[in-house]
Amino acid sequence: MEVRLAKKHGFCFGVKRAIKIAEKNKNSFTLGPLIHNYQEINRLQQNFNVGLEEDYTQIKEGSTLIIRTHGIPKGDLEKIKAKQFHVVDATCPFVTKPQQIVEKISQEGYQIIIFGDITHPEIKGVMSYAKNQDNTIVISDLQALKQQKIYQKVALISQTTKQIEKFNEIASYLITKCHEVRIFNTICNATFDNQQSARELSLEVDVMVIVGGKTSSNTKQLFMIAKENCKDSYLVEDEKEIQKEWFYGKKICGITAGASTPDWIVQKVKEHIENI
Amino acid sequence: MEVRLAKKHGFCFGVKRAIKIAEKNKNSFTLGPLIHNYQEINRLQQNFNVGLEEDYTQIKEGSTLIIRTHGIPKGDLEKIKAKQFHVVDATCPFVTKPQQIVEKISQEGYQIIIFGDITHPEIKGVMSYAKNQDNTIVISDLQALKQQKIYQKVALISQTTKQIEKFNEIASYLITKCHEVRIFNTICNATFDNQQSARELSLEVDVMVIVGGKTSSNTKQLFMIAKENCKDSYLVEDEKEIQKEWFYGKKICGITAGASTPDWIVQKVKEHIENI
Repeated sequence: MEVRLAKKHGFCFGVKRAIKIAEKNKNSFTLGPLIHNYQEINRLQQNFNVGLEEDYTQIKEGSTLIIRTHGIPKGDLEKIKAKQFHVVDATCPFVTKPQQIVEKISQEGYQIIIFGDITHPEIKGVMSYAKNQDNTIVISDLQALKQQKIYQKVALISQTTKQIEKFNEIASYLITKCHEVRIFNTICNATFDNQQSARELSLEVDVMVIVGGKTSSNTKQLFMIAKENCKDSYLVEDEKEIQKEWFYGKKICGITAGASTPDWIVQKVKEHIENI
Repeated sequence: MEVRLAKKHGFCFGVKRAIKIAEKNKNSFTLGPLIHNYQEINRLQQNFNVGLEEDYTQIKEGSTLIIRTHGIPKGDLEKIKAKQFHVVDATCPFVTKPQQIVEKISQEGYQIIIFGDITHPEIKGVMSYAKNQDNTIVISDLQALKQQKIYQKVALISQTTKQIEKFNEIASYLITKCHEVRIFNTICNATFDNQQSARELSLEVDVMVIVGGKTSSNTKQLFMIAKENCKDSYLVEDEKEIQKEWFYGKKICGITAGASTPDWIVQKVKEHIENI
C-alpha cells in the first residue's frame, strides 16, 4: 500500500510547549489530561512521573500542578492559586488569547458568542472569563445560534480548533442581525494548516486514516474534513485499531494526525499500513 | 399591461426628512444635490426657491445652507460653519452614524475599510472622518480589497445603499486575514427592504422597470438585483424614457423605485405602462 502523509499534521506549538513543560516538572500533576492523547499522557506518567488528577482537592498541597493546554475555568484557577500549590501554566497561548478577549470585551458591554463545543474544557475555560454569564452563548453551529437571543452589540470568537468556513457562516448571519459585530479569528494557525493539508490530501487518495485521540476536537475536525472528500476515512488512536478490510482494492492511503498526536504513533501507523 | 409595484419601494426616511427640511427653509441653498433626483430638486427650486450650488464660496454669507442627505466632508463642514451661514443639516441620520463610527474607531487605532463607491458624496463624507487617511481604504468589491494592504485590526463599514451579500463576502475575507474585524452593518433598513422586494418581484414578472436617478447608488443597486432574475430590466428617470418595444410579448411588468424617487414620478410611470 502506498502511503502519503499530509504536508502539515500532528503536534502544534501549544502541545509541544506543554509536553516540554511537563517533562521539566517531574513528579507533578496535571489537572485533567494535559493534551487529548492518552498514549502521550501515559508516556509522561511512566517516564516523568507526571500524574493525572481531575479534582485538585485530591492533590497534596505543596505539589506542582500543571494547567492543561486547554486551560481551566477562571474560578478554578483562582481557587488553586489560593492554595499552597506550585502552579505551572501550560495553557496554550492561543487559548489564553480568547480568554483575555472574552474578559476584556465582555467588560465593554458586548454579548459574547462562542463558536465551540460547550462540553470541551477549552470552551468551559474561555466562557468562564465573560463578565455576564447570563447572556454569553456557546453554539455548535449556525442552526443553534438561530434559537438564541442576540443583542445589538456582539463579539464572536471561536474555539481554536474549529473550521473557518463555519465560523464565517455564523459571522455572516450575525452581521445581518446586529449593529456591530466584533469578530476575533481565534482559530489557531496550526489547526488551519492541518485542516488545509487534510483537505488537499483527501482529494488524491483512496482511503484516509486520521490518527488522534477520540476526545480531541481538532482530530474530529480533520476526520470530518477528510470524509467530505474521501468517504473511506477512518479515525484511529493507534495502529492496533487498523482493520485490513479498509484497504481491499485501494492503492493509495493518506494519513494525517491531530495536533495532540505524537509523531511516534503516526510512524507506527504509517509502517503498519505500508506493510498491508 | 398588468403592472405590479414592489411591496417596498421609493422614498426612505432620510429622503422624506430632507425634503421636509428643504420645504421649511424657503429661499435657501443646498450644497450639491439634496437627493439624487433632479425632478424633485426642480420642484423644490420652483415651489420653495431652494437653490442648488456646488461651491459654497459662490453663496452669499448670511444665507441658509442645507447639507445634503449624503453628508459632506468634515473639513468642508468646518469651513462652512466658520463662515456666516445659517447651516441646516439634512444629512440622513443613517449616514451620520457611519461618519461617527469612522471618527471614533479610527481614533482607537483600527484601519478603516469602507465598502462603497469612492466617487459617491456619501463616501467622500464618511471617509473624511478617519483619523489616518493614509491607511483608510475604500473598495468597490472583494477583488479590489485583495490588492490592498490590510492591517491586523480593522473596522469594516458599508455605504448605506450596498448589498448585504457582497458586504458579507468582504467580511468573510477579512476574518481569514485579520486578528480582529469590527463589522458595522451600516446598510440602511430601507435599502435592505427595497432590495428584498425588488428581488421577490423580479422573479414573478416578465419585465422590470426601475425608476430613479441615474446617479443614485441605491437605484443602481435595485437595477442590478432586478437584472439577476429578470434580464428585461430597465432603469428610467421618468415615463418619457420608456420604450414600447420593451413590452412586446410580455404580460406582467414589475415596478420599483429608488429611495430618492418621489411617488408622483412612480405613479406617472405606472399609468404610462398600464396604458401600453
